[in-house]
Amino acid sequence: MLKKYDYKTLGKTEIQQLVARNTDPNNAIQEVVQEIIQQVRQQGDIVLREYAAKFDKVELDRLYLDEEDIDALASTIDRDQQRALEIAFQNIHKFHSTQLKRERTVETMPGVKCWREVRPIEKVGLYIPGGSAVLPSTLLMLGIPARIAGCKEIVVCSPPQSNGKINGFVAFCLKLLKINRIYLVGGAQAVAAMGFGTETIPKVDKIFGPGNQFVTKAKSIIQGLANVSIDMPAGPSEVLVIADESANAAFVAADLLAQAEHGADSQAVLVATSTAIVDAVNTALVAQLAVLPRKELAAKAIENSYAITVENLQEAIQFSNDYAPEHLILETDQWESLTRYISNAGSVFLGHLTPESAGDYASGTNHTLPTSGYARSYSGVSVDSFVKKVTFQHISETGLQQIGSVVEILAELEGLQAHKNAISIRKK
Amino acid sequence: MLKKYDYKTLGKTEIQQLVARNTDPNNAIQEVVQEIIQQVRQQGDIVLREYAAKFDKVELDRLYLDEEDIDALASTIDRDQQRALEIAFQNIHKFHSTQLKRERTVETMPGVKCWREVRPIEKVGLYIPGGSAVLPSTLLMLGIPARIAGCKEIVVCSPPQSNGKINGFVAFCLKLLKINRIYLVGGAQAVAAMGFGTETIPKVDKIFGPGNQFVTKAKSIIQGLANVSIDMPAGPSEVLVIADESANAAFVAADLLAQAEHGADSQAVLVATSTAIVDAVNTALVAQLAVLPRKELAAKAIENSYAITVENLQEAIQFSNDYAPEHLILETDQWESLTRYISNAGSVFLGHLTPESAGDYASGTNHTLPTSGYARSYSGVSVDSFVKKVTFQHISETGLQQIGSVVEILAELEGLQAHKNAISIRKK
Repeated sequence: MLKKYDYKTLGKTEIQQLVARNTDPNNAIQEVVQEIIQQVRQQGDIVLREYAAKFDKVELDRLYLDEEDIDALASTIDRDQQRALEIAFQNIHKFHSTQLKRERTVETMPGVKCWREVRPIEKVGLYIPGGSAVLPSTLLMLGIPARIAGCKEIVVCSPPQSNGKINGFVAFCLKLLKINRIYLVGGAQAVAAMGFGTETIPKVDKIFGPGNQFVTKAKSIIQGLANVSIDMPAGPSEVLVIADESANAAFVAADLLAQAEHGADSQAVLVATSTAIVDAVNTALVAQLAVLPRKELAAKAIENSYAITVENLQEAIQFSNDYAPEHLILETDQWESLTRYISNAGSVFLGHLTPESAGDYASGTNHTLPTSGYARSYSGVSVDSFVKKVTFQHISETGLQQIGSVVEILAELEGLQAHKNAISIRKK
Repeated sequence: MLKKYDYKTLGKTEIQQLVARNTDPNNAIQEVVQEIIQQVRQQGDIVLREYAAKFDKVELDRLYLDEEDIDALASTIDRDQQRALEIAFQNIHKFHSTQLKRERTVETMPGVKCWREVRPIEKVGLYIPGGSAVLPSTLLMLGIPARIAGCKEIVVCSPPQSNGKINGFVAFCLKLLKINRIYLVGGAQAVAAMGFGTETIPKVDKIFGPGNQFVTKAKSIIQGLANVSIDMPAGPSEVLVIADESANAAFVAADLLAQAEHGADSQAVLVATSTAIVDAVNTALVAQLAVLPRKELAAKAIENSYAITVENLQEAIQFSNDYAPEHLILETDQWESLTRYISNAGSVFLGHLTPESAGDYASGTNHTLPTSGYARSYSGVSVDSFVKKVTFQHISETGLQQIGSVVEILAELEGLQAHKNAISIRKK
């Protein structure tokens, strides 16, 4: 059952508390992760093998699998499953391939031409979580935009299973992506290995991918240490569902539970235009929860979640923008007139037949999205995340006549004489 | 005089050393900055006034200047200077206004529509350094894209002069940008104030702007603390000039010195196709340096800099891509055929008549650029930096038939039953 609040009775402070995420600055994790990073930086491959033995319960001869191994593993999965992964691949590829655009040259003054050109980030590292959960979809969500961007080197790390292999679904996705090596390294040590490089694992320019608390802490620490950037800060997954009288309570409950089953720290927020809706959703929730395989986990997440009753859909959007959810689902017939008011959200699911799980796997949009309120300033992963834009400019003789004295005056007023000289010497 | 190296005699390790920046993990700074952030978080405005007294030598009644004060200050500057700032404003605006684009909707399967919409980051904070240096150009470089993006709240912080005012040039730029308040707060305390908010200073979603070591350290710390993002990690400014026989040694020397005068920790690297060019540039450098007002500073930066002789322009580009300079100047007639090989650089200046100082002020491109090798994975500031892209998707009944079983299979293979249910319940 979701805790219930009435929006009009909430003060500013209470709203701030509801909107705040449960960010746990756990120093115990910080210390463990710093130690792992230090070890990998100093000792490289040797300590990666030790961590594999300790955490993944496997003795590794080689720290990677190559094409032959990947082929063999990929062939073990069902044709139906292959087909589903292929369709997901195609949809994600189709959507992301529209994101790479040429820009035009702007002549800001006669003879002064400026433009931007897109360049792939050369070396990228993708972290694919493993262990109990198996996440081939994450490999597609990161590998496809990396391929479209044209990254030269795509380093994939994932923890080995106890047999020293990886899962067949992940292997099949590697084949779809034409990536013929995967490094058998998981956790904070994978992040450290890609950040600094080891004898076997190449250093990368940017690290992508979700993971447990150790992985996300390692990503936040490595940024400042290893001259490497990361996709975004990460926190527990979350959904906010807006529902009005047109909503089907069973659909809403199913969407909240799909979020809740991710983990006890997931949050599923319902914003509804009446208490009757909240009650109907809570009833459906209890019924559906009872038969879920991951019901203990989901029940804990629901305990940390809540429902808010609002007067109307505008108020609902206002709260949602304050909350800035990773996933936002609009279960209302009015979705079309509301989209323009949505300011802070990662990915938005419109109408009664668009569950978040469609976007998690196969609609084509990316599922690597900003959490913990970072949707206020971050976009989800896209081809943009795998490129940078370099600015170019060219000035002709005419251009120099036009712009020269402007630059001289501005350099002078900032007290930078050598900046002025670089113009003056050319005007002679 | 620049130290000289010959590219073909350099091993991989030596190149790595030359390419590495002088990143000083100064713990003394870290501790000071952490203390300042903590104080501002706990005490707000009171401690901001104390810091103004301590660091800026001024007792402030009000922590900001409003429209009337700004107008009065702006009117004190010369008409020539106003005109130069207006032209810079126009050029920067013209170039940046092409960066905001609508994207089309993609129907990934019949009935499955996906698209992205651009939304401004609602609240942004711009830090404009002050004190001895006066940087109205930085205010234009940050304020213009923020305005084009449509940010609702633009908070500007800059340290007060000892008379409790700001510089007239900055005031004039505020007027150009239609920003009618500036907060008189500098240093790490300004970053903390914008990150957490105080009684007077609003909390923002993203903090932009250059600054001294205290400011940049505060930006890197605040990211993890205050649920706020930053434009990019910052380090000392740098230029790499590629010159061949067609280059004018005096122009090259002037460009290297324009970089060097920024500060002793700036780096100016010359990559030339012969030792004769290096010698000619060094001769010109010595002559030009002697008459610079900031010659001590520039001389120190030149000591930390170097020249490399390469066999040809391709080798020059190869070294430049390894170095990933903030600014790259191609002083060669061959620039047009080289641009496609440039992978890692912030902003590139093409040909003999395009000095970096043109881009610093007025060509139209942005001067807030990635340093310290971050050009491998970061773009410079642009309108993109002030927006996020929200993904939307809508699935119709037809769409649900198309995509439903794919999602069910994929949810099943990842062991997420509630994800599958969210589809199954809708298919009934």
